[in-house]
Amino acid sequence: MITQQQRVHNFYAGPATMPLEALERAQRELLDFEGTGMSVMEISHRSKEYLALHEEAKSLVRELMQLPSNYHVLFLQGGASLQFSMVPMNLLGGDRTADYLVTGDWAKKALKEAKLFGKTHVAYTAEATNFDRVPQADDELTLTPGATYVHLTSNNTIHGTQLHRFPDTQGVPLVADMSSDIMWRPFDVTPFGLIYAGAQKNLGPSGVVLVIIRDDVLERCNEGLATMLGYRTHVQNDSLYNTPPTFGVYMLRNVLSWLKGQGGLAEIERRNLAKAKLLYDAIDAHPDLYQGHARPDSRSTMNVTWRLANEELEKAFLKGAEERDLVGLKGHRSVGGCRASIYNAVALDSVRLLAEYMDSFAGQQTK
Amino acid sequence: MITQQQRVHNFYAGPATMPLEALERAQRELLDFEGTGMSVMEISHRSKEYLALHEEAKSLVRELMQLPSNYHVLFLQGGASLQFSMVPMNLLGGDRTADYLVTGDWAKKALKEAKLFGKTHVAYTAEATNFDRVPQADDELTLTPGATYVHLTSNNTIHGTQLHRFPDTQGVPLVADMSSDIMWRPFDVTPFGLIYAGAQKNLGPSGVVLVIIRDDVLERCNEGLATMLGYRTHVQNDSLYNTPPTFGVYMLRNVLSWLKGQGGLAEIERRNLAKAKLLYDAIDAHPDLYQGHARPDSRSTMNVTWRLANEELEKAFLKGAEERDLVGLKGHRSVGGCRASIYNAVALDSVRLLAEYMDSFAGQQTK
Repeated sequence: MITQQQRVHNFYAGPATMPLEALERAQRELLDFEGTGMSVMEISHRSKEYLALHEEAKSLVRELMQLPSNYHVLFLQGGASLQFSMVPMNLLGGDRTADYLVTGDWAKKALKEAKLFGKTHVAYTAEATNFDRVPQADDELTLTPGATYVHLTSNNTIHGTQLHRFPDTQGVPLVADMSSDIMWRPFDVTPFGLIYAGAQKNLGPSGVVLVIIRDDVLERCNEGLATMLGYRTHVQNDSLYNTPPTFGVYMLRNVLSWLKGQGGLAEIERRNLAKAKLLYDAIDAHPDLYQGHARPDSRSTMNVTWRLANEELEKAFLKGAEERDLVGLKGHRSVGGCRASIYNAVALDSVRLLAEYMDSFAGQQTK
Repeated sequence: MITQQQRVHNFYAGPATMPLEALERAQRELLDFEGTGMSVMEISHRSKEYLALHEEAKSLVRELMQLPSNYHVLFLQGGASLQFSMVPMNLLGGDRTADYLVTGDWAKKALKEAKLFGKTHVAYTAEATNFDRVPQADDELTLTPGATYVHLTSNNTIHGTQLHRFPDTQGVPLVADMSSDIMWRPFDVTPFGLIYAGAQKNLGPSGVVLVIIRDDVLERCNEGLATMLGYRTHVQNDSLYNTPPTFGVYMLRNVLSWLKGQGGLAEIERRNLAKAKLLYDAIDAHPDLYQGHARPDSRSTMNVTWRLANEELEKAFLKGAEERDLVGLKGHRSVGGCRASIYNAVALDSVRLLAEYMDSFAGQQTK
């Protein structure tokens, strides 16, 4: 059996590191799922064994997020990218308007899709300063009275910013892309009408997207859509209208089961805050060498982004990191620099090693 | 390590049995993909390791199916069910008409979605006889001159029928749902403008759909669609516009690598014909007990469907099957009876055991 020590320290932005326990469980039972004599990949999605797993995965989402009973939990395909279209396809049209908070490239993509299906309004944008911040107060937003929904991206993987408080929209449902920070901490879901999250950061492998939708928002969904693109279809069929990505749901179950075992969202928040502090402290300790992209008030606890003084230093930094098995630290191709993604499953020890390396690399430069 | 002997004989219709070799490979390297120190689920879809895998999977599809260079190979999400909508969304509209061959429930679903996006014509239907047959000759079809495409379902999992020859459409591109019999044998792809196949029968786990599209059909695709729903997006981005279902593509690679090692499509056809013959011979040997659903000329080599003389006998048959570790033989809920799905990965020995059981069960009834 491989141990944590033989694994590299994985800072990829997604697909990203997963809990060793969740992977080992999958490895152990890959050829025989719970005594069925079959892999979990080989059993019918209508079998009692799969249905029990499906229920358990849904229950873990409900329990960890403390979802009230008027929310439905769906496991769909197509990632957040397909949700960018499904949301407006289901909820816009006619004289309805949706407000979008444009806090990064993913939010821009969501807005672009919404424009294909109805009226939109940009209630906030930080594009002028290359998305280095997110709104800190409601008076920074220009919300449309009577909007159908307000769309936000809770965490911006590319720029490394994160909303630490959600806007008060006076009852207008929030619709949120939480792909990169879902379940990073406990939060009150009741202002949210719809939440979606690609699994490949905090929940499991790519190929599953978690969608949580509230009853009143479901009731507003348009009729006459392509069957697979209507939220009604998936709620009515418990995400089993077509064959779900069964192995993806299985891995999500394994990951959430691990998360629950660790102490749930309160404990993971404590660890995530500690991990982020290590890296931001390292950046702040060497301001001549490291420039954080995000403004301090907008810093993400999931993706820490920074540049070095020049590209040569960046290359040297990344090369040294790889020699220490610190992997996946290159920034997104659209912004460059460095990025450390420190999702729930990234161990504190891995982050500590990175912070120590950042310090020692800085020490070398000043010699 | 588990052996084939400890596994049950899995006749599920999909998700379905997979080659033991493909699963064992996954198990072996689940925590360390090719020396990366990470699971294949944990590596970025932009990493060189994943990109090499992606290329290999595409190459295996090309090689096994002998695809000419004017075909693109895509790995998408949403299964055949989303393709039911994507095909007409991309190709219908205006005064264009698509012909549909309605040979079963899946074809009906495909037609239903097409009607949402443009003009359709039913060029063949076997609904009156509960889909017990597929067209045997072109004069059974009423094709529309100048149709945009002719849609067919090459194999009908629920009713157990299969097209053993494809219609001559005088140059109109065939669009085919081959979810349940893709790569069951070699065939000439050149009359096909678009082929799609959910992976969970002959290719891998659920959550990946293989799409093969020809250049001239791609050029006809509509513009202005939701980005994720346009074939152009996925061709232009080599199926990497958004995060692909990386583990699904990995398993598909493992399965196709096994298939190639077995001798490719010519050898698998030989085995598939032998497997199907065993079961149809068992049905035909006991006509008082077993009634095959499909007419002999339309019988599927992938899904063998039959009823017993009464429901009590069916229950007894299925109970005895389970006692022999012959699993997944219950017919689809919409037709009842029994169904043995004998896709590429189902071993000849498993099918032989089932055929022997069918014979011995029949022997018991006549005592």
